[in-house]
Amino acid sequence: MSSFPDSPAFTGFNTPSRVEADVFDLAVEGTIPPEIHGTFYRVQPDPQFPPLLGNDIPFNGDGMIARFHFENGRVHFRQRWAKTDKWKLEHDAGRSLFGAYRNPLTDDPAAKGTIRGTANTNAFLHGGRLYALKEDSPALVMDPDTLETLGYTDFGGMTGETFTAHPKIDPETGDMIGFGYASKGICTRDMTYYEVAPDGTLKREIWFENPYYCMMHDFAVTRDYALFHVVPIVSSWERLAEGKPHFGFDTTLPVHLGVLPRREGATAADIRWFTTENCFASHVMNAFQEGDRIHFDTPVAKNNMFPFFPDVHGAPFNPMESASFLTRWTVDMASNSDAFESRTRLTDMAGEFPRIDDRYQGLPYRYGWLLVIDPTKPVELKGGSAGGAVMNTLGMVDHETGTEQSWWCGPVSSLQEPCFIPRGPDAPEGDGWIVMICNRLEDRASDLLLFDATDIAKGPIASARIPVRMRFGLHGNWLPAAA
Amino acid sequence: MSSFPDSPAFTGFNTPSRVEADVFDLAVEGTIPPEIHGTFYRVQPDPQFPPLLGNDIPFNGDGMIARFHFENGRVHFRQRWAKTDKWKLEHDAGRSLFGAYRNPLTDDPAAKGTIRGTANTNAFLHGGRLYALKEDSPALVMDPDTLETLGYTDFGGMTGETFTAHPKIDPETGDMIGFGYASKGICTRDMTYYEVAPDGTLKREIWFENPYYCMMHDFAVTRDYALFHVVPIVSSWERLAEGKPHFGFDTTLPVHLGVLPRREGATAADIRWFTTENCFASHVMNAFQEGDRIHFDTPVAKNNMFPFFPDVHGAPFNPMESASFLTRWTVDMASNSDAFESRTRLTDMAGEFPRIDDRYQGLPYRYGWLLVIDPTKPVELKGGSAGGAVMNTLGMVDHETGTEQSWWCGPVSSLQEPCFIPRGPDAPEGDGWIVMICNRLEDRASDLLLFDATDIAKGPIASARIPVRMRFGLHGNWLPAAA
Repeated sequence: MSSFPDSPAFTGFNTPSRVEADVFDLAVEGTIPPEIHGTFYRVQPDPQFPPLLGNDIPFNGDGMIARFHFENGRVHFRQRWAKTDKWKLEHDAGRSLFGAYRNPLTDDPAAKGTIRGTANTNAFLHGGRLYALKEDSPALVMDPDTLETLGYTDFGGMTGETFTAHPKIDPETGDMIGFGYASKGICTRDMTYYEVAPDGTLKREIWFENPYYCMMHDFAVTRDYALFHVVPIVSSWERLAEGKPHFGFDTTLPVHLGVLPRREGATAADIRWFTTENCFASHVMNAFQEGDRIHFDTPVAKNNMFPFFPDVHGAPFNPMESASFLTRWTVDMASNSDAFESRTRLTDMAGEFPRIDDRYQGLPYRYGWLLVIDPTKPVELKGGSAGGAVMNTLGMVDHETGTEQSWWCGPVSSLQEPCFIPRGPDAPEGDGWIVMICNRLEDRASDLLLFDATDIAKGPIASARIPVRMRFGLHGNWLPAAA
Repeated sequence: MSSFPDSPAFTGFNTPSRVEADVFDLAVEGTIPPEIHGTFYRVQPDPQFPPLLGNDIPFNGDGMIARFHFENGRVHFRQRWAKTDKWKLEHDAGRSLFGAYRNPLTDDPAAKGTIRGTANTNAFLHGGRLYALKEDSPALVMDPDTLETLGYTDFGGMTGETFTAHPKIDPETGDMIGFGYASKGICTRDMTYYEVAPDGTLKREIWFENPYYCMMHDFAVTRDYALFHVVPIVSSWERLAEGKPHFGFDTTLPVHLGVLPRREGATAADIRWFTTENCFASHVMNAFQEGDRIHFDTPVAKNNMFPFFPDVHGAPFNPMESASFLTRWTVDMASNSDAFESRTRLTDMAGEFPRIDDRYQGLPYRYGWLLVIDPTKPVELKGGSAGGAVMNTLGMVDHETGTEQSWWCGPVSSLQEPCFIPRGPDAPEGDGWIVMICNRLEDRASDLLLFDATDIAKGPIASARIPVRMRFGLHGNWLPAAA
């Protein structure tokens, strides 16, 4: 096939990989604690073919799933395509058939009728299944060992068209809690709330509408509520017809937090919407209840964080205002007001990709980890440009002591999302390790780093050399061998 | 497992790869002629585990076979381990058990009794079988499509212990002609000549002795003769007991060319040995008969070409004298003398890895290709060292016109052995393409280059981007789809 475009999304460290690979027993510097037994999954967008329209954004690549299996102090690597219906159709055609990110108006006629999802956003585990997820499509099921694709699922009855890439596991019921947006199609305000049992079947579906159509990338779940933050990363069919990027940021619209009770029998009519002034937020670190109050922790920026989804009113991208700081939004269910009770910045470090000890999902929690962008520590390569996002520091916040820790990966590397590995099912919160990928930008290679989770400042305790370059990745999760 | 040594053989571009990989439809710059239909196989030494003795030479790595399948203007990549008995034993142990290159005295006791071969020298095709070859062991059979290892073969009756990594196909009979040395074990002078039918069964075996034990890496076959060049890359059990490198070069011994008649009923008694003064030669470009004369074309250096196999008398390695020039050795079977008739240098370029249009094996031929080391064109990396041999130019010699052509790959790359692809089974000599791997040293990636075979000076007509770094490789071959 022809070569990829000579643009930043397809060159340097971002050169498409497209490699299905197996490496038995990665070479390791340091020591992998032998008690680590389980598997870390993550996904990278990786275009199967050169883009139909000549260029593309990184978020539109096909999902490539990596699996790092830890056992007896060794770690083994496997990587396979998430073979979506789109992937298969294009594979058979030998070229791209789908056009711009979430713009079916740009597709080749041969693409019509095929689910557009790329399964490139999260590799999520539930009930022994591996789900490769993209929020514009249903969940794609894969075998967690072989990484063979088994196909899309509707959980035996989901009636919405989409399933989030950021479901949560209810730590008490073991159910997977998810949602969909654009549930009746692109640009519709229709949303759906889902609860899926560990056997993969749908237990509950609630339809509702959000105040305006926008990117609903993440959400939060507490014991009694599902929480939806509505941030004006908006779109419209007019935009798509004009060939603009699907999303753009609108600084004139307010931000909302929708609170859906999870109690039996709740419906759309039970949702309560809180409203606050315009800002940018995407991923959620965690949320929890404290009496009638609900706390919702998310990195918040003053303005747009996505330069590839530009301001809808034409304002230039503002890098200073794109810095996001972990912020606690608090709403009071006992209040009569639709206003937030407070918006409190929690950290000095600017960062995104927030993660927790997932066993504390929706519960009061102490530790959070995130990727920090430290502008005082630039990437300095012999070759010149960084070739990717410069998240070069791992940060940890201890909400109990109000302290922060960080570890900088140096001037020739960048980092991908951290993931927490508990020492065991009954270990205290934070007792375990952080696993994450480090991009060695000059070597065009990657390392898998392992940290003591609450002592990240001392640096990695082990670095596994991955002989295959791991592209800019999104989200990943840990599956204990016991599960 | 623990990390590899911080030595040149294991760092930079030479970092172990160890990746079993599949890439469908490599990205290509330029155009692959759609009439190319078949598969290019090559092998790289790639250590499965860190060396038992703390460090090692590149030639001791385990064989990793790559397969590039061309069809309809596309090329697909697959790479798998040659799973030798050594590989399996070490895989199960999770560490190296075999010590230095061809020195069983350095092995772990657990290695005793297992064939030491690494299958890391050639990927050779005959009769629908893929052979992964190492000259110290039997031939390892692999499936040419899946690259699954099927195990060692003795061709149904080979009684020697070893089979060369450089067999030839007799263009008239289709038989595979091979030989073994150290056929009764390391440091023995016993050799064996083999003819193997396309069905994989042994047709003929002749035992003989060479004048002294040495590295017998290649040979030549003409219609009537098998030709063995004996060059004093020598060894002894004393060397092995002292922990020296298996081989060392001895400038005090003469060079011989053994001529074994291939006629029915020939035996060791029929071998005729010619003798000439000391020099260094390893690979053979081709040989052919002209009346009673036999011409034997090989790159010849004044002195040792292998710094890792140092002078047995302690002389320092001499880079100037290690330059090899394609040279025609001629012996006259009608003469009564044991002297060579002539030794004629054929090229101005210094090079090795000589190849031809293999359909002209043992016959008068016009074209040869080789890797040229051009000292006026050094590797200049941003990062510093070259990280490997600096064969950076493809050369072609036209024996009919006495002219040479070359193409330099630039200051940040190096090249691996060329291989000729005929346009079709009946195409004239040289009518086709050259395929070869280019190491892009700074990008830590590799390209597969395609040239018009007799117009290499204009540069590649297509470059396929291999997203996996291909280590220093040895030999490879082309299998037409029709075969």
